[in-house]
Amino acid sequence: MTNNTQLNNAINYFEKNYSTYFEKFEEFIRIPSISADSKYNPDVEKAAHWLAAYLTEMGMEKVTVYSTTKHPIVYGEYLKAGLDKPTILVYGHYDVQPPDPLNEWKSDPFEPTIDGDFLVGRGASDMKGQILAGLYAIDSILATGTLDVNLKFIYEGEEEIGSPSIVDFIKTHTDLLASDFALNLDAGMIGKDSPTIVYGLRGLAYFEIYVQGPDHDLHSGLFGGIVYNPAQALSELIAGMKDENGRITLPGFYDAVLPLDENERQELARLGLDDEFFKEQTGVEELSGEIGYTPVEQVGARPTLDVNGMSSGYTGEGPKTVIPSMAMAKISTRLVPNQTPAMVKEQLIQYMQEHAPSQIKWEVKQLSSDPASIADRSYYATQCFVDALREVWGTEPVYKREGGSIPIVSHMKDTLGIESVLSGFCLPGDLIHSPNEHIHIPTWKKGIHATIHFLYNLGTHND
Amino acid sequence: MTNNTQLNNAINYFEKNYSTYFEKFEEFIRIPSISADSKYNPDVEKAAHWLAAYLTEMGMEKVTVYSTTKHPIVYGEYLKAGLDKPTILVYGHYDVQPPDPLNEWKSDPFEPTIDGDFLVGRGASDMKGQILAGLYAIDSILATGTLDVNLKFIYEGEEEIGSPSIVDFIKTHTDLLASDFALNLDAGMIGKDSPTIVYGLRGLAYFEIYVQGPDHDLHSGLFGGIVYNPAQALSELIAGMKDENGRITLPGFYDAVLPLDENERQELARLGLDDEFFKEQTGVEELSGEIGYTPVEQVGARPTLDVNGMSSGYTGEGPKTVIPSMAMAKISTRLVPNQTPAMVKEQLIQYMQEHAPSQIKWEVKQLSSDPASIADRSYYATQCFVDALREVWGTEPVYKREGGSIPIVSHMKDTLGIESVLSGFCLPGDLIHSPNEHIHIPTWKKGIHATIHFLYNLGTHND
Repeated sequence: MTNNTQLNNAINYFEKNYSTYFEKFEEFIRIPSISADSKYNPDVEKAAHWLAAYLTEMGMEKVTVYSTTKHPIVYGEYLKAGLDKPTILVYGHYDVQPPDPLNEWKSDPFEPTIDGDFLVGRGASDMKGQILAGLYAIDSILATGTLDVNLKFIYEGEEEIGSPSIVDFIKTHTDLLASDFALNLDAGMIGKDSPTIVYGLRGLAYFEIYVQGPDHDLHSGLFGGIVYNPAQALSELIAGMKDENGRITLPGFYDAVLPLDENERQELARLGLDDEFFKEQTGVEELSGEIGYTPVEQVGARPTLDVNGMSSGYTGEGPKTVIPSMAMAKISTRLVPNQTPAMVKEQLIQYMQEHAPSQIKWEVKQLSSDPASIADRSYYATQCFVDALREVWGTEPVYKREGGSIPIVSHMKDTLGIESVLSGFCLPGDLIHSPNEHIHIPTWKKGIHATIHFLYNLGTHND
Repeated sequence: MTNNTQLNNAINYFEKNYSTYFEKFEEFIRIPSISADSKYNPDVEKAAHWLAAYLTEMGMEKVTVYSTTKHPIVYGEYLKAGLDKPTILVYGHYDVQPPDPLNEWKSDPFEPTIDGDFLVGRGASDMKGQILAGLYAIDSILATGTLDVNLKFIYEGEEEIGSPSIVDFIKTHTDLLASDFALNLDAGMIGKDSPTIVYGLRGLAYFEIYVQGPDHDLHSGLFGGIVYNPAQALSELIAGMKDENGRITLPGFYDAVLPLDENERQELARLGLDDEFFKEQTGVEELSGEIGYTPVEQVGARPTLDVNGMSSGYTGEGPKTVIPSMAMAKISTRLVPNQTPAMVKEQLIQYMQEHAPSQIKWEVKQLSSDPASIADRSYYATQCFVDALREVWGTEPVYKREGGSIPIVSHMKDTLGIESVLSGFCLPGDLIHSPNEHIHIPTWKKGIHATIHFLYNLGTHND
C-alpha cells in the first residue's frame, strides 16, 4: 500500500536525521523563555522568532510573529492538502516555568544534559519537546511525500502565566484560525507503556488573600496578646477551608460538581494508577485527600484546594520578636465541570465574610481563572489519534481525566467551535514545574512516530 | 544643702553642654550596629569601641572591649567612692534591630533626623538614647563635683539576637562584676507624664516549626488533592494553638502560671492604660486576646503566643501552581512566672505529636529562651529611683509588669545574686523594632535629670 510506504519513508527519514533533530531540540531548550519574569522578555521574544524561523524553513506559509501586550503569538499555515481535507489547528506554548529553586538542579536548567535515557532541561517536557514532536512528524512527512491534511499553527508565550493574550487573539482572528479541530500535545501519558488520551481537564481559580492586623509591625513583647495576629487569622481561615474528611468548606463548593458515574469510575480504576504510583511520584509516605474517592479520581475528577504560597512577618535567620501587620496566602482551586471560577470567587468571598475575625481586615484578589472541560471520547479525530497510539505502542490507549488545566481547550471550543485532540508524550515523573525537569527520549521518539501515523490516519480517513 | 547645690550644678552643666551631648548622641546612632546581620559586624565592633572611648574620656578605668564568639562586650569601672558606698552595675546594649522594612522609613534609619520634639533613627530609643541618658548623668556629676557611688559598666552587642554570649561572660567574670545591684534603663514608661518602674518581665521561648509534605514541589494540577499540603498542615497546627477564648492550647501551658491577685489587678488598672491607649499604639480598630483579662493584664501578666513569621511555596508575583514541599513558621511565646522556656518546648513538642497529621514530617527548633522574672518593689535602690522620678516629674511613679523580655535581669539575679532597678525613658509610641523609631527628646532630657537625682539619692542613702 502506498500509504504504508509513505508512512515508513517518513519514519525512516526521521530516524536517519535524528541527530540533527535532536540538536535543534537542544538549541530550543537553551533559550530561557521564562514568561513569568520580565528580565527574560528578550529570551521569550527570541524563542518566538526561533519557532517562526523553523516554520518558515519547513515550508509553512504566512508565518507571522504577532505582538501582544506581553509575549508574542506565532502563527503559520500549510493549506495545500485541499478543501476536502481536514484542517488541524496545532497549538503549543513556547514559554517555560521559572527554574526556581535553582540550587536543586543537578545541571544548568538551560543547558540540556543527557542523563541515560533522559534529556534534562527546563521545558524539555513542558512543552518544547512536545512542540517539536509535532513539527518533526510534519517535517518528516513533507521531506518524503505529501501531507494530506491542512495545518494551522498557533504558539503562545504566556501559557505558564495564565495566557492573558491568547483568548483575545483567538476572538479577533476567528477567520485566520478557522479549522476542523485542534491538536494539543500539552497533556501527557500515565506511564511510558500507556499511551493516553485526555478527555477531561480541571479548571483553575487562583487567588491571593491578604490579611491585615495592626497598621505596622509591633513588638511582640509590648503588644503580644492584645491584637489579632494576622498570620494567626490567616492560618485559622486556611485551616477552616477543609473539613476532617478532606472536603472543601467554601459554601456551595460542590453544588455544581458533575458527579462521577459508576462507569467512569470503573474506567479510571482501569488506569492502574494506584497508591504506590502516586507515592512514588510525590515522595510522600502516606497519601491524603477527600474521603470516598481514589487518588486517580481525586486528581482528575474531583475539585481541590491548595495553598500555593504563604508569607508573613520575619522569615530571615534568627529570632525577630515581631507581630506582623500583614499576612498573605496564594490559594488555588482546581475545578471540574460544571464549576466556574466566578462561582468559586463568590464562594471564597462568602467564606471570608462568614469566618474572618472582626479584628482583621482582608482582601481577596483573583489572579487567574480557567474553566474546566470534558470532551467526547468518540470524536473522529480523537479516534485517529487513538489508532496511531495503538499502532506504535502495540497496546490499547487509555482515557484519562487530567488534573491540570489547559484553558485554551475551552477557549477554542467556545470561540472557534472546535474540539481538541489532547495527548502528548510527557510522563508523570518528568518533574515539570520542578527542578530537574526532563523528557524520556525513547517515549518522545515513539510519540513522533505516533504523530506521523496520526497524520496519515487522518489524511486517509475521508478517502 | 551641699547636695542640692551639687545636684543643681550637675543639672546645669548638662543643660549648658546639651548641644555637645546631643551631637554625640547623633554620632552614636549613625553607627549601624545591627547585630542580626553579619554584614554589619564591623559596625557592631565600631559601636563597641565608640562606647569604650567615651567611657575612657569620662575617666572610667579598666575600660576593655572583650571579644566573644560574636559581638564584643564593653566593660569599664569607677570605684573611687569607697568601699562603704554602693556599687551599681550599669547594664546596656549597644546593638540595634534591623531596620527592615526599609521602604517604610520616612528618613534614613541611620541618619538621625529631628522631627519636632522627636529624634528619629534606629536605636534612638532602644537603647542608644537610654545608654547615653545614664552616661550623661554620670558625666555631668563628675564634671561638677564628686560621685558618691561606685560604678561598673557592662554593655553587650547581642541583646537583639538573644544575648548568646553575656550569660557565659557573667558566669566567668563574677568577681569583676560583683556589685550591689544593677541599673537597667532598657525598660520604658507607660506615657510621657507617667514615670515608670518595671517590676515584672515576661520570658520568651522562640521556635521555628518546619513542616514537610512531598519531597519536592509538585504541580498542583497533577497532584492537587492527594497529598497533604504542608502549608495547609502548618495553618491547621497554628490555628489549633489557640481556642475560641484566646487561650493557648499547648498541653499544660497555664499550669505553672502565677495567678494575678486582686491587689495586683487593681494596681495594674490604676496605670490607666485602657483599650483606647492600646488601639492608638497598635493601629487596630478592635482589640483581641484572652477572655477574662484586661489588655494591660494581657500584655504584662499573662503568657501569650504569636506567629512572628511564616513562609511557604511561591510568594512572588503572579500565579504559580505549585504544592510546596515545605512550610515554616516562627512562633514565640511570652512567659510569666513561673513558666520556663524548657517547659514550653516540651509542651509544643507534645502538641505537635498529638496534632500533626500523619502524612507530614515536622521539626521544632528552639531559637531563644529567656526566663520570666518578678522583683520586690520595695527594694531600697528601686525606691531611690522612684524618689528621683517623683522629684523630676512631680508625680507619683507607677509600677508595671512589662510585656517584653529582658533576660539579663534573671541572669544577673541567678549568677551575681543582684536585683535590677528597671526603668527607662522610652515611650510606648517610640516604634522600637519598627520603621521610624524615635525618642521623645523632652522626656529623654527629664530622664537624664532623674538619673542625676537617683545617683545623688543613692550616694546619700547610707549617709
